Amino acid sequence: MTTGAEARRPGAAIPVLAVVGVGLIGGSFAAALRQAGHVDRVLGVGRSRATLERARELGLIDEPATLEQAAREADFVLLSAPVGALESALAGLRPFLRPQAVVTDAGSTKEDVVRAARRALGAQAVQFVPGHPIAGSEAAGPQAASAGLYRGRTVILTPLPENRPADVSRVEAAWQACGARIRTMDPGSHDAALGAVSHLPHWLAALYMLYVAEGPDASRRLELAGSGFRDFTRIAAGSPEMWRDIFLSNRTAMLHEIQALKTVLQDAERALSGGDGPALLDLLERAARARRAWNGEGSE
Amino acid sequence: MTTGAEARRPGAAIPVLAVVGVGLIGGSFAAALRQAGHVDRVLGVGRSRATLERARELGLIDEPATLEQAAREADFVLLSAPVGALESALAGLRPFLRPQAVVTDAGSTKEDVVRAARRALGAQAVQFVPGHPIAGSEAAGPQAASAGLYRGRTVILTPLPENRPADVSRVEAAWQACGARIRTMDPGSHDAALGAVSHLPHWLAALYMLYVAEGPDASRRLELAGSGFRDFTRIAAGSPEMWRDIFLSNRTAMLHEIQALKTVLQDAERALSGGDGPALLDLLERAARARRAWNGEGSE
Repeated sequence: MTTGAEARRPGAAIPVLAVVGVGLIGGSFAAALRQAGHVDRVLGVGRSRATLERARELGLIDEPATLEQAAREADFVLLSAPVGALESALAGLRPFLRPQAVVTDAGSTKEDVVRAARRALGAQAVQFVPGHPIAGSEAAGPQAASAGLYRGRTVILTPLPENRPADVSRVEAAWQACGARIRTMDPGSHDAALGAVSHLPHWLAALYMLYVAEGPDASRRLELAGSGFRDFTRIAAGSPEMWRDIFLSNRTAMLHEIQALKTVLQDAERALSGGDGPALLDLLERAARARRAWNGEGSE
Repeated sequence: MTTGAEARRPGAAIPVLAVVGVGLIGGSFAAALRQAGHVDRVLGVGRSRATLERARELGLIDEPATLEQAAREADFVLLSAPVGALESALAGLRPFLRPQAVVTDAGSTKEDVVRAARRALGAQAVQFVPGHPIAGSEAAGPQAASAGLYRGRTVILTPLPENRPADVSRVEAAWQACGARIRTMDPGSHDAALGAVSHLPHWLAALYMLYVAEGPDASRRLELAGSGFRDFTRIAAGSPEMWRDIFLSNRTAMLHEIQALKTVLQDAERALSGGDGPALLDLLERAARARRAWNGEGSE
């Protein structure tokens, strides 16, 4: 955790940063940029006075602010509030937003965020560069924030056609200062890919956990569950509100992924019910080979 | 790893132990019993000469043996070969088995093991006490064995009605000497419970992994997969042969669990496709509450 000792460094890339939603994601962004000397002053916007005060004590922000104050002063705004709260935050910023400011977000879905941004910002959507840092943890709140959260992680940007290249570069530079690498793609591909590798596992883990916990013989079964169960269900403990928002906002891609997975599950079930050992072995071998070959960022 | 320095200790509870299948499970059992001074001499039986030699070098066994030699000499036999090889191992032991010997196994399913034991042993099934240590790892082979593998873990025994209580006690004492705690249940309840909390997660993780790895845009998707994906799919890397055997031998319970889970998945899919936020939130809250409350052995 940074102490703020490096703040007020003259000539920082971002003179005034505003973070809307100072939890794990926003707090870590502020901490990383401070540590890198990339930011001068940090304003924190949030619903809870206590959370903002805590963030200030932790040195994540310099002072609490309203959306209006943030819009009037900030050169760079990160929206790290839940996806469901994004449109109203943008609407609150819009009337006061400085013309040279750039706004980005950290939402887990992008097509709906782009739609919300266009509704809320109108022509000023030109100042909004949508983003998604692929990092997180079950921990939440400013006390969980860390300057190292984004180191070596991927941040996906899905720029709008009208974004100024210089603004996209400013957002890239900020995330790179946090230690992240940048991937650029279109919002639809982002949502389909994240639906498959992030949202679908959460869906399965949560519903499987629910099934076991509320199914027959639950207490004995849960007592016998071991380390495979532990890892398989870990993500089911994540924030229900956050995941409801993600599932609803990525509904189309999710429903598509669920259908496609069902085909694979049904083929395997047919092999199992027919006692087809060679077919099962083939499926399991292909799965094990793919998992062993995987070397994504999570496997570091 | 023990060095065998404590071997040949006079008066050990098990003068001669035979381990059929000297990999992670059998090797760790031998190592733990040696460390506890619970065993005097250890014979290792296996298909691969090289594996047995490696086990001897590691101090897990004193010498390689055939099934016949093992049966003629052992007071205690652990079958830790794959479930699919269990019946032929028991048939190989039967003609030479000492009347005072007790035989147990480490198979992940129990109803089929009991059936196989009755077929292979006939009246001598009285000497067979079925068991299942809930411990393991993606690592395999004697080099992965460790005297601490069973410490604090649960071993389930599903004794046969005809087992002598003294034999059941001998098996319990051996596992307790490894640091494990004992649970006793009937084979059907074991298979249903493990089907739900162990086999079903493996089924879902493997088929999900297969779907992503062989689905659209796979290489980019796998590159974007993060720590949630990593943990959710970890078990999919497990031995395809072992899991094929487990799924086939626990087919009835598995098919039942798959159907029951489908009901939960379909309800949730209906809520998602209807955009029913409150229903989704309710499901996710129940799942998160259950996962946070879980304090099974895997969560130590």
